[in-house]
Formats: sequence, C-alpha cells, structure tokens
Amino acid sequence: MQPSELTLSAAADEIRARRLSPVELADSVLERVERVEPHLGAYVTVRAERVRRAAREAADDIAAGRHRGPLHGIPMGLKDLIDVAGLPTSASSRVRSGHRAPADSTVAARLSDAGAVLVGKTHTHEFAYGLTTPQTRNAWDPGRVAGGSSGGSAVAVAAGTATFALGTDTGGSIRVPAALNGVVGLKPTYGLVPRHGVTSLSWSLDHVGPLTRTVEDAALVLAAVAGHDPRDSASLATPPARYLPGPDTDLTGLRIGVPRTYYFDRVDPEVEAAVRRAIGQLEALGARLVDVEIPMARYVKPTQWGLMVPEATAYHEDTLRTVPELYQDDVRVLLEAGELMPAGDYLRAQRSRTLMRQEWERVLRDVDLIAAPAVPVTAVEAGQEAITWADGTVEDVADAYVRLSAPANITGVPALSVPVGHDTAGLPIGMQLLGRPLGESLLLRVGHAYEQTRPAHGLATATAAARQTAAAR
Amino acid sequence: MQPSELTLSAAADEIRARRLSPVELADSVLERVERVEPHLGAYVTVRAERVRRAAREAADDIAAGRHRGPLHGIPMGLKDLIDVAGLPTSASSRVRSGHRAPADSTVAARLSDAGAVLVGKTHTHEFAYGLTTPQTRNAWDPGRVAGGSSGGSAVAVAAGTATFALGTDTGGSIRVPAALNGVVGLKPTYGLVPRHGVTSLSWSLDHVGPLTRTVEDAALVLAAVAGHDPRDSASLATPPARYLPGPDTDLTGLRIGVPRTYYFDRVDPEVEAAVRRAIGQLEALGARLVDVEIPMARYVKPTQWGLMVPEATAYHEDTLRTVPELYQDDVRVLLEAGELMPAGDYLRAQRSRTLMRQEWERVLRDVDLIAAPAVPVTAVEAGQEAITWADGTVEDVADAYVRLSAPANITGVPALSVPVGHDTAGLPIGMQLLGRPLGESLLLRVGHAYEQTRPAHGLATATAAARQTAAAR
Repeated sequence: MQPSELTLSAAADEIRARRLSPVELADSVLERVERVEPHLGAYVTVRAERVRRAAREAADDIAAGRHRGPLHGIPMGLKDLIDVAGLPTSASSRVRSGHRAPADSTVAARLSDAGAVLVGKTHTHEFAYGLTTPQTRNAWDPGRVAGGSSGGSAVAVAAGTATFALGTDTGGSIRVPAALNGVVGLKPTYGLVPRHGVTSLSWSLDHVGPLTRTVEDAALVLAAVAGHDPRDSASLATPPARYLPGPDTDLTGLRIGVPRTYYFDRVDPEVEAAVRRAIGQLEALGARLVDVEIPMARYVKPTQWGLMVPEATAYHEDTLRTVPELYQDDVRVLLEAGELMPAGDYLRAQRSRTLMRQEWERVLRDVDLIAAPAVPVTAVEAGQEAITWADGTVEDVADAYVRLSAPANITGVPALSVPVGHDTAGLPIGMQLLGRPLGESLLLRVGHAYEQTRPAHGLATATAAARQTAAAR
Repeated sequence: MQPSELTLSAAADEIRARRLSPVELADSVLERVERVEPHLGAYVTVRAERVRRAAREAADDIAAGRHRGPLHGIPMGLKDLIDVAGLPTSASSRVRSGHRAPADSTVAARLSDAGAVLVGKTHTHEFAYGLTTPQTRNAWDPGRVAGGSSGGSAVAVAAGTATFALGTDTGGSIRVPAALNGVVGLKPTYGLVPRHGVTSLSWSLDHVGPLTRTVEDAALVLAAVAGHDPRDSASLATPPARYLPGPDTDLTGLRIGVPRTYYFDRVDPEVEAAVRRAIGQLEALGARLVDVEIPMARYVKPTQWGLMVPEATAYHEDTLRTVPELYQDDVRVLLEAGELMPAGDYLRAQRSRTLMRQEWERVLRDVDLIAAPAVPVTAVEAGQEAITWADGTVEDVADAYVRLSAPANITGVPALSVPVGHDTAGLPIGMQLLGRPLGESLLLRVGHAYEQTRPAHGLATATAAARQTAAAR
C-alpha cells in the first residue's frame, strides 16, 4: 500500500512512530496527483514545491520532538471557498480572477496550527451554488458526476490525492459528493465549525466539515476545526467534546430511527437495499430500530430554496451588477431570480424552518439518531439532467441529490455520510446518520462501529477504484 | 384616597389584610370608569356586570382562605390584542368585527390564575401598527395624544380605571404611552413573556409587558406573566427570577451608562433636563456614571422598519386581499408597502440586527445598565404630524416617538420607562432604563430606588391629574 492510500489515522500512527516521514507521504501524494489529477480535475491548483516545503517543515519539527498531534504532516485539500492567506480563493469562478486572501480562514488557521500540509484548493460548483462540480470527474467512473458542490474535496480523498479534505455543505454539498465517491462526509451541527473566512453561499444554511476515508478520520479533523469563533456570528460557544470513537462496537441500548416516510421515497432500489442492509448491521450490533415519521416533509424543498436563494443573491449583490457576464449561466440565473423574491417568501421559509426545527427536536427525543440514505441514487452520467422514478415521476438531478440532505441544513442537526457498498455498476452508496444538535460524538461512534464490523462485500478501496479509473483512460 | 387610586402593591396589602374587599375595589374602579372613561376612550368595552361577578368570586375565595397572591382581586386592563376566552379581540380594527377568542392567551390565563379581575380590553392603534391610539386621549390633557400603540392601557392605569394593565411593544408601544401618561412601562427581554394568543404585529420584535403606577407594581405583574411557553417559538426556557425589588436604595458599585450619542440628540430641552436630573439622583444613590457610545445608531430606523414591515404584512396577508377596505388608511398603506419589499431588504435588516445585538452586548459588558430618555418629547397635540427640532430638522411624530424605543426591540434587551417629572405644560416625562438580556431584576431595583428617593417636585399623581382632566371637560 502506498502512503497516499493510508487513512489519516494510519498515516498519523506511522508518522508518530517515525516509520513514515511527512516528506515521503507528501511525495507519494504528489506522485498520485501527477498520475490521476489530469483525469479527475479535483484541484484548482497544486503547487508541488509549496507542498514539499511544508512537508519538510513538518518533518523537521517532528524530528526535533515538536509533534503537534495526529494532523501533523498530513496532506489535505481545502475546498476553494476557504481562505488561505496569500492564495486566491477562486470559488471556481471567473468572478474571483485575481483574488488573493488577505488572511487564513479560521479553519485553515486551525489546521495549519495542527500541522496539516495543504496540497491544494479543490474545485467546487461555482460559488457552491449547485449539486455537481462540472470541472471534476467521479473517482469511480470518469463518465459520471463527482457530485457537489464539494466534489473536488471528495474526489481528492477518494482518489488518494489528499489524505483528508474540507468541504462546505449548504444543501448536501459535503454529503452528496462523499456518498457518490465512497468517502465519509460530515456536516456538523450548525454553528459548531466557524465559517469566518469561508465564502458564503447561504449563511443560515452553510456548514464547514470534513471529508475523509474513515469515520475515525472525520473525528480527528472535526476535533481540530470545531470550537467557538466570535467572528462567525452563528458560531456556538460550546465546550469542546470528545469526538474520537473508542474501540467498542456494542450499540446495545441505542434507539435508531428508521424513517417510514420521506427518506425511502423515490430511492433507487439498490441504494435502498444497501442502506437497509447497513441498518440491519447496526441492529446486529445491538441497536433497537424504531419507526419514525419525518415531520413537515413537504416543506423541505420550499424552505431550503426560500432561505438559500435570497441569501445567495445578497452575498453577490455587487458583482451581479458589475460583472454578471463572469458567472456561469446556471448560477447567474439563480442569483438573478433571488432579486425578484419578495420578503414574504423569505420570512415564510424562516418560519417554516423554526417549526421544522421544533418538530425534528421532538422526533429526536424518541430516538438517539436516524439512519437513512444519503442520496437517492448513485452518481449519474455527466450531462444527465433528470431522473425518472419507478412511479413515473421525473425529478431534476440536482433536486434529487439535495432532497435527502436538505433537512439537516434546515434544522441544523449533524449528519454523517458513510459508505455502505456499491451498486451493480460499481458505484458507491452512502448511508446518512442524523443526530441531535451537538450529537456528533454519537454519530461518529455509530458510524465507526459500522465500519469496524461491516461485511466485506462490495467494498473495494476507493483509491484502488481510482487507480482503475486512471488506468482505464 | 379612593381604592381606584391605590397602587397594585398597596391594594394587594389592603386586600390581604382584609381592610379592602375586591368588590369595593372593583366598585371604585367602575365608578371611575363611569366618570372618566367617556372623556378618555381607553377601553374598547367594559362590562360592569362581568367585572362585579369576577370581583365577587375573588372576594369569596379570599374570604374562604384561598388567597392566591398579590394580584388576587386586582382590576386590570388588557390591550385588545390579547386573547381572553369568549371575548372578541378587536385589535381596535373593523377587520376583527365578530371575532371571538376561542381560548385565553398565555398571559391572560396566568393573570386569571393569579386572580386578577379583568375590567376590559383597552384600545390600541389598529393592530398596534402605529405610535398613537386615535380613540384614546392623553390622561393629562385631552387635547394631546395618548401615545401608542398601548395607549388605552397606559391611560387606564394613569386615570385610575385599571390598577394595572398589559400592553405590547414592537417599537416602543409600552414605553411611549407609559412615558406620555406618567406611568411605569416595562418591555421585558425578548422571549421572557410568552406571546401565545396575542395578535402579532412583527413577531421578531413583539413583546408583552406591564403598565403600572410604580416600578414595584411592574415587578409583581412581571412575576405573574414571565416564564416559558413552548407555544411561542421565541419563548425562552429561563428559570424564574426574583423580580420584586427590596427596600435597599443604595446603588453603590453600579455602573450606569449615560449615552454620549443618539439618546440625547434631538430631545426636547425640558425632557433632557428632567432625565439628567433623574440620572443625577441615581448617582446620588451611589451609582457611577459612565459615558457610553450607542453603536450602529444610524441603522436603528432601517433595521426596525426592515424587520417590521414584511412581518406585519405576512400576518395580514389574507385579510389584506379579502377585506382591504376594512383597514384604516394609514395601516393599509403600510401593509401594502410590505408586499413590495424585496427579500434582500428583509435579510439585510436581520443581519444588521445580529450585528447590533453583538455591539450592544459589548457596550453592556462595560456598564450594568443604560439610562436615557424614553421619548424625545412629551405628548404632542392630537393631529400634530411633525416636530421641528432646534437644529431645524423636521421629524414625523411617529418617527420621533419610536426613535429612542426601537433599539431595545431590535436588540431584545429589557427596557423600563419610569416617570421623572413633568414639563412646564404639566405633561409627564419618562426616563428609560435599558439592561442586559434577562436583567429585569436590576432594572426594577434601580427604578424602584429612584422612585423611593426622588424629589417631590412636579410629581402630581396621575390619577389626580386625570381627575382634573375629567373635571375640566
């Protein structure tokens, strides 16, 4: 196994034990970048010299006995909405041409303090305003979408060109590409990870979170980036929690809600089967399954759009007037639509959110977490615009991908996407675990227990698949 | 002194000691209603038989040893936005013709449980959407405005036709009429007093609170109505606090902020002089005065309007389409304007509020409370539309009355208006004390200390003045 294929946790163990140097790890990742990145398009830019220099510094520090913890010397990708001092934050948009971030975002500063090594900034759907990442190919099949908007981050982690990455999630943009590329994605509780220095799509729905190869890795990254920052006005003043799951896989006593409504409606049968198998595995570990009804399900879509559209437009107000021609058509149309939205629609969406939060709180009093599919369908062909369901209904691809993710953005509850196998086309399937506000530790414990005990069927490593992908070209 | 002229606290003491029966108190108040109400127009309706029956029940309960506490047998007025089961909630509007409330609002139920006796529902500016109360005359001068929108409640308390009353305050609607009629008005912390069953003007700015003759009385009423109710989604789950101020008037160690900006700009010189004298009295009691700068002052007006206008319109959406002709012109125009407001304006007002809250929090870390005028000018002549200030600027009367009140609505901090004398025309002047969120106890302690020690000059009792008013007609 190449160092680039190691999980974060395994790489950290090797580095701590001085069996692996951050320089070797960086070289292995850069070699992989050189080999697969031309076919994947996960990164906006990779500056190999900069990466090697940072890896060398980490190696020197560690050699000098200044080991900073599990992220020290670990190669990472940051979605290109996240400011890193001195680098452009392109947001994958021509609008940002010539941009240069004056300072680190809070998360970049925290990861830098933890010793992580930046490989590069990863592609997003322009300004994160979409559920695909047009520049980026799926890590398992180059003809398929990567999903988005954190597609670059998910593909980099899946393909071995970053050991972990950060993404942002406004309607599913961490969980959707995580599910479609067979990696773990965590959208934390609203307000847990500060967004200072991260380009906003819709501030009342935006979240920053990790994409990793394992649940344990997600816990390690979350521990580094979570915590109060007064410069994000939504940032929670929560005490630090222990996120790292222990070795115990016994789930006895846990009540896991299985949605009777919404989350299994219009879901591909192979996706449903894989997720139900995974839920069965949680039951086999001792959890009790409880039927739950998803409240206010028909308000999800209008609430998500009613919040997102005007907030996105407000953020782009100036550039939309001065340089509208620099936006991609799909994004510009959405932004312009936001200018026409009346205040009444926005406030109705806010009221609906308030009610939805209360209703979800009620549901989550009766169960400890909810298990459901992350996305209703695996990665579609690039260019496919609609999905025809068995009941004859036709759904826009973006609508389908956002459908099962948006509730956690609206309610702010944490949601973890965990790979649970592949469909017959070999494409990854994700299960979503949704918890109570600030219930990350439990989600990570359950996800980790699943990972430790899952049956081997259909679980090729993503990096192996990416190699196949690259070789096939 | 007639029973109708007693403070709540004094009346409660008399009732508890069985020196006064709720029936005598009710009769005294009803007699006063008969005498002065035709000239004041504070009440929408008073049903004397109903009042006497309730007083009789209270008297019987107390005689049987079932004394419920200080509000038992005390006559009260409720602003006619507050539901009382079986009675219409007219909102002083033709739109509500034929209305009948199916159940008590939370505050009405709590006051009823405490044994208070409803005299009647009091007039408001139609649906509380204005700073006057056209049906109601000032208790001190029938040619002057009562202020609003809780004008009926303030005038009833000032004129002796209710021992206490409840009002609502969205931009000053408790504090403005309290100041203009020489009574105490408290706008509590946002979320402290539940609004379930209270007609909404603008839910993110609406507050319910007491109007009383003394600060101590306000504490007694607050204690009865404060506390969590999940049916108001903004209701705080706060533990109960002790509101009743003790006898100690020593303010040593308190830091009182005196605004260097905003609150003394464009303020009538007589109002300024009276408020500064009152602040001097607080200093004489041991408080240390500290200059403070009011943050984001120029955003107060656009933020207040940006929040209120679309929220009010949303509430009236249906009736505005079906029966627009039933609204008064001034209110209908405001509601229709709300339909044209873009979502961007509303969300900018919300962002501005978030920042303003943070800035006020910062200011209120350095001082324990802020003392300022409640309104910049005493009661104007009925029909007067604008005020010309010494600097030559002309200000709409409603804008002037809302100007010094709105910051506490936007930020949600508690604000208490206390009478501090009269101008040379004999009209009452109010001082406003603003505190930290949930800092009611301190505001009440300071207001009470002021009341206990204030110099006697110019402080005729409001009821005496109202008698003069009635006699003069």
